[in-house]
Amino acid sequence: MRVPRCCLGVRKKCIIFPILLILLVGVALTTLLPPAEDHGGVGVLDVLRRAASQKEGPAESRRAGTAEDKFTIVIQTYNRTDILLKLLNHYQAAPHLQQIIIVWNNVREQTPVKMWDSLGPHPVQVVFKEQTSNQMRNRLQAFPEISTDAVLMLDDDTLVSVPDITFAFSVWKQFQDQIVGFVPRKHVSTPGGVYSYGSFELQNPEMAGGDVYSMVLIGAAFFHRHYLQLFQDQPQAVHSLVDETQNCDDIAVNFAVALYLRKHSSTDSRAAGIFVKPVDLRSLEKDASSGYQGMWHRPEHLLQRSYCLNRLTQIYGSMPLRYSNLMISQFGFPSYANHKTRG
Amino acid sequence: MRVPRCCLGVRKKCIIFPILLILLVGVALTTLLPPAEDHGGVGVLDVLRRAASQKEGPAESRRAGTAEDKFTIVIQTYNRTDILLKLLNHYQAAPHLQQIIIVWNNVREQTPVKMWDSLGPHPVQVVFKEQTSNQMRNRLQAFPEISTDAVLMLDDDTLVSVPDITFAFSVWKQFQDQIVGFVPRKHVSTPGGVYSYGSFELQNPEMAGGDVYSMVLIGAAFFHRHYLQLFQDQPQAVHSLVDETQNCDDIAVNFAVALYLRKHSSTDSRAAGIFVKPVDLRSLEKDASSGYQGMWHRPEHLLQRSYCLNRLTQIYGSMPLRYSNLMISQFGFPSYANHKTRG
Repeated sequence: MRVPRCCLGVRKKCIIFPILLILLVGVALTTLLPPAEDHGGVGVLDVLRRAASQKEGPAESRRAGTAEDKFTIVIQTYNRTDILLKLLNHYQAAPHLQQIIIVWNNVREQTPVKMWDSLGPHPVQVVFKEQTSNQMRNRLQAFPEISTDAVLMLDDDTLVSVPDITFAFSVWKQFQDQIVGFVPRKHVSTPGGVYSYGSFELQNPEMAGGDVYSMVLIGAAFFHRHYLQLFQDQPQAVHSLVDETQNCDDIAVNFAVALYLRKHSSTDSRAAGIFVKPVDLRSLEKDASSGYQGMWHRPEHLLQRSYCLNRLTQIYGSMPLRYSNLMISQFGFPSYANHKTRG
Repeated sequence: MRVPRCCLGVRKKCIIFPILLILLVGVALTTLLPPAEDHGGVGVLDVLRRAASQKEGPAESRRAGTAEDKFTIVIQTYNRTDILLKLLNHYQAAPHLQQIIIVWNNVREQTPVKMWDSLGPHPVQVVFKEQTSNQMRNRLQAFPEISTDAVLMLDDDTLVSVPDITFAFSVWKQFQDQIVGFVPRKHVSTPGGVYSYGSFELQNPEMAGGDVYSMVLIGAAFFHRHYLQLFQDQPQAVHSLVDETQNCDDIAVNFAVALYLRKHSSTDSRAAGIFVKPVDLRSLEKDASSGYQGMWHRPEHLLQRSYCLNRLTQIYGSMPLRYSNLMISQFGFPSYANHKTRG
């Protein structure tokens, strides 16, 4: 019969032609989609959120129900349980705090959970995560217990006042794709192209008025929880470097965030972090009854960090850190009319 | 013949079906386009740029060739030519300055252009724009001479140091859709819902730690040149208010910018401006040989500004101003290690 064959033949053509048309229209419309640009803090993290959702699955991420107006404290601790307990009494009362996660690097030593429970009730839950080995980068795991977008990472000898915490949290909410914290550091480039690590003692008055920083250390800083997964996704060589030095995890995080901002921003120039000038940040290091003084007392500590700058630049193929000279303080606190004072 | 009819019939169906498919696919892809959201500073001003281009025409805006790394100073002046000339000697040397525009409110009085020219050469061009009447809002015209994205608007008795200017310009480049300046003010809401205008003397320690601001005055501030056109596009009632009071043009600009940010941001909470703490900002007011002391000495000045807050809220139907407590300073300037000092 000629009709069926004719219609069949025409039908084939009629199918191919509209399919081609649809593809063309689809391509045309897709080119209208804007490139992955800088959408401000929210947009960059949208990309991370989508990536995370693909890993977690939408059901899990809905269940997680990340609280947007609260944060999670993460403190890694080793051999300083006495000052940790002092810190816990302070931090447990911080406004907007969801819970505290203690990364317990005292391997095979009992956590103080029994004592903690016996002294309840507490304003927030504290979770003691016992680690199988004493590793610097244990604190950078993407802990499933974290139910807030914001993480406040703290060293186990650092006391940050509540006004500082509350203010820095409010700043972080305005700059969610950056590390917002209290300890600025920088890299300098020596004429031979070798990088060196330091702080304000390294500033060069010949270069420009004032100082700059290119890193905000994560031992006292807010950052988005997705940056934990971001660190986990970094090349193995980076993890090995941190393991080899038992140092530089914070520098590595700054590198990862800086690279991420490069990739997902329309501007190339934002620093990985924003420095908030602390009003009251204290080190309780000297109070540790163990006498344990922390890794930064090792003679090679600073040289290691310079070494890490160069290794990381080598691993990534370029130096992604950018400089900033923004220093953020709280208007009118602590001094009445502090906008009129010199300092 | 059955074949042609059959094929014709099939052809009609084959046309309708793919057309419907294309429409469906087109709709689906278009919904993937993100809404006009907060794209950070650049994005909001993209909207303004497109609007401006539609007014100017793309050819004109290309010809204008707005310099992105320079700014234009706009100073409105009345009866203080002596201190204006002192200021011109200072400002003409500012780095990144493209040109200076003097809004000459001394109606029918000769500008000092002859003296200026006789004392050349000068680092930058100065344009004296003679006004036909002495009006406060003359300075808010969208002057065609402005060829930079950034405008630094200054009162004619205000000397801002070059480090302050340079730093605030660098901050503005990071927050181009906000007014970045040195003079913060705020509104407060009294229990009856009536607004009142003031500064830090109005802060209430019962409310929260620290102070807040909701406006950054344009007498010493950077903002995008498109905000001049934005002001021109505001309702006639706003212009009339400024004319009636010979005051409040800066409050009106903050309202317009705040509304604009509300409309073009994904967050509702950004303040119209960002306060940069000046290191060296001086008033030369007392030096004016005319003895002319500026509008703010009128007894009714502050009451007028509270009046303006309420009138503008009435005109717009709501209070668009939002509070901020961010105070930005330059890291390491002027004091070595100023991140460690109290202030």
